[in-house]
Amino acid sequence: MTQALGFGMSLNETHDAALRSWVQSANEPDTDFPIQNLPLAAFRPRGEGAFRIGAAIGDQIVDLAHPTVAALLEPRIAQACRGAELNELMALGPDAWARLRMSLSRALTVGNAEQDRLRSALIAQDAVQFGLPARIGDFSDFYTSIHHATAVGRLLRPEQPLLPNYKWIPIAYHGRASSLRVSGAEVARPAGQIRLSAAEAPILAPSRRLDYEVELGVLIGVGNRAGQPIPIGQAWNHVFGVVLLNDWSARDIQAWEYQPLGPFLSKSFATTISPWVVSAEALLPFRGPWSRPADDPQPLPYLQDAQDQASGALDIVLEASIVTAAMRATGQPAALLSGSSCRHAYWTVAQMVAHHTVNGCNLVAGDLLGTGTQSGPAAVEAGSLIELTTGGREPLALPNGERRTFLEDGDEICLRGFGEREGFVRIGLGSATGRVVSAEMRT
Amino acid sequence: MTQALGFGMSLNETHDAALRSWVQSANEPDTDFPIQNLPLAAFRPRGEGAFRIGAAIGDQIVDLAHPTVAALLEPRIAQACRGAELNELMALGPDAWARLRMSLSRALTVGNAEQDRLRSALIAQDAVQFGLPARIGDFSDFYTSIHHATAVGRLLRPEQPLLPNYKWIPIAYHGRASSLRVSGAEVARPAGQIRLSAAEAPILAPSRRLDYEVELGVLIGVGNRAGQPIPIGQAWNHVFGVVLLNDWSARDIQAWEYQPLGPFLSKSFATTISPWVVSAEALLPFRGPWSRPADDPQPLPYLQDAQDQASGALDIVLEASIVTAAMRATGQPAALLSGSSCRHAYWTVAQMVAHHTVNGCNLVAGDLLGTGTQSGPAAVEAGSLIELTTGGREPLALPNGERRTFLEDGDEICLRGFGEREGFVRIGLGSATGRVVSAEMRT
Repeated sequence: MTQALGFGMSLNETHDAALRSWVQSANEPDTDFPIQNLPLAAFRPRGEGAFRIGAAIGDQIVDLAHPTVAALLEPRIAQACRGAELNELMALGPDAWARLRMSLSRALTVGNAEQDRLRSALIAQDAVQFGLPARIGDFSDFYTSIHHATAVGRLLRPEQPLLPNYKWIPIAYHGRASSLRVSGAEVARPAGQIRLSAAEAPILAPSRRLDYEVELGVLIGVGNRAGQPIPIGQAWNHVFGVVLLNDWSARDIQAWEYQPLGPFLSKSFATTISPWVVSAEALLPFRGPWSRPADDPQPLPYLQDAQDQASGALDIVLEASIVTAAMRATGQPAALLSGSSCRHAYWTVAQMVAHHTVNGCNLVAGDLLGTGTQSGPAAVEAGSLIELTTGGREPLALPNGERRTFLEDGDEICLRGFGEREGFVRIGLGSATGRVVSAEMRT
Repeated sequence: MTQALGFGMSLNETHDAALRSWVQSANEPDTDFPIQNLPLAAFRPRGEGAFRIGAAIGDQIVDLAHPTVAALLEPRIAQACRGAELNELMALGPDAWARLRMSLSRALTVGNAEQDRLRSALIAQDAVQFGLPARIGDFSDFYTSIHHATAVGRLLRPEQPLLPNYKWIPIAYHGRASSLRVSGAEVARPAGQIRLSAAEAPILAPSRRLDYEVELGVLIGVGNRAGQPIPIGQAWNHVFGVVLLNDWSARDIQAWEYQPLGPFLSKSFATTISPWVVSAEALLPFRGPWSRPADDPQPLPYLQDAQDQASGALDIVLEASIVTAAMRATGQPAALLSGSSCRHAYWTVAQMVAHHTVNGCNLVAGDLLGTGTQSGPAAVEAGSLIELTTGGREPLALPNGERRTFLEDGDEICLRGFGEREGFVRIGLGSATGRVVSAEMRT
């Protein structure tokens, strides 16, 4: 069964809302991982052996290196799925990714004849440890939310919140790859130079303004040769999938260090991503038309594409919630801090890819592109504390009476994300969590 | 024979100026690679097979994977030298690096009994192709020359050339690792957004203000665990060695894109490094005392160390020269553009390492730290064209009558570097060259 979407891409049987899996937990309405999702991750039984690749189905993982599963795949795909990370599969390209997805979908559908043998390839998600899904060579972080850029700019430059280049350039900077961590890793509060007032000398101290940033991370599958830009119309063929990304930020370190070369130590201590990579194909139903305010400049030709205008907006909702040490001690549930959708972004994923390579820069399989903090137009849709608390001046009240401007030791931030659309099954991104600890407490 | 240096570090027999090698070219006074140097690189016979590790001696390379050489080394060191890059050796630490250096020095000294058998492990440098010396996970670029920062700042902000944080923070930004290239690779002129005047819309065009930047690159040997900063007094134990680094820069793209997150596409199209990594040990004779102007703030405690004050200045001369297409056609020699010494840097290598990790950021074996453009106090010591031509307003005259503001297609930039000191043999860094080609001409 194939459905056509309005923007010239067609869905296939893997998107069919009527599909059910013989893995019962995948058919629950609130699961992140129905059979229409099938995201991939690197995992291993807790503490044991080498990482390997698996696909999520309900609360289970299908081990792609298991012989019963490998036997269902084309040999080159089975071979690529034998690695400890996704890079080899990424490099095979979108046709191979689609074939793998189709094979897994059929294998996991109710009534599949191999069902009994495939059951031995399942392992419960709560019995494993996740690794980074790929060897990430370079991490670039964009700044695609005009609402975030304006809100942060207003704190720094009330007279000119948005700089003149913002509406022309998908602004980005190089991030730090070595400190990327998968969900669950603790985040040690960084020390750094802080200047408490313009009249004082800076001091070295633990950050007092530790923040999170809610982002979508885009993992590149097929790279490009140096000197050969990726045209915007080809950009999605290079996108393997997406993860949740928390770009932890020390605002006090950032404010003092960022001129003139940009953020450095304020961001490089930790960046948390979710383990499951949701494929570009699984996200197709949540893409839609995108437009600019009529008064804004239209993008330069290398950033313009009819297909991208028809389908560049990604209606993926991203949410951040908090559990403080006090909430944990009293068994309280996580408190939602904010939620918004990536469809509010000023720049699309295709524009990010086209811009990144227009100078000839080569992307490599496994490279990570962050969207930057995704904040929506409403104040409650802001994806960071610096926005939600107006630079720390207006504390947030949590349900248990605690107040927060920035993060305290013991606070755990959890990002979640999902796509929902009438006629389709909800697709979840899983979660990316990290608990703030003092450097001394770090285990 | 052991000599003591004034700053509490002692030299060993490998530094002895009286040492001679049975490889005659290593004894020539103008060689970059006397037996007192012994830098390492990844190489392969031109176009053939896998890269392997070698040490330079005169105009030859000692193949460290050759059985005769491997038999001279401790097994764990011989094993680490069997890789295609230096990362495994880097991770072994400074004691292993020193032992390897000592073994090679003895093996190559006049009178060594194995000399005839070792001859079969030699290959001429002009018969090989070089690779990147290491898998470089992350590339961070500093801004340690106050003369460069002031000169460039004056062009952008005449009223405040040097920002208030400069004398407190060793400013740096994350660079792009995927576009690092070894000497000899062509550099395609990048296209990007350029705004010709504040009143006009930007255009997409090939850069018209393509520049080079003369830097030293510091390769990290032993990394640190996340959350565990490297104290400044330990920093040099983590430094494997240095290379020449040309951080090609498109000034027009940079000027339009760099606010507020720093340079991105203006730098990410190519960075050229020299193939030979000169060890921290070989550089010992060229280290010396370092001080700040009395009116300047003293560094914060985490950036202060008595040993570093006694020996943090690196008297390595860096030079840039040019050969234009017209010069090449008429057989003219390269024209020197500028030369300066790293000893003028405002921040030391140890301060770079200590600052980079003070927030807990983990460095990894093979990481590359650039010093930033090394410009000296005199105008002729500026390490980039934007400084030498005052922002392109005052063209340079070349010996053949050509003039340059920024680089033209066909221009080849060659960086060279060396240490010289009375009583010691001159140590060279080799060269890092790159020729600018238009995207169309690129081979």
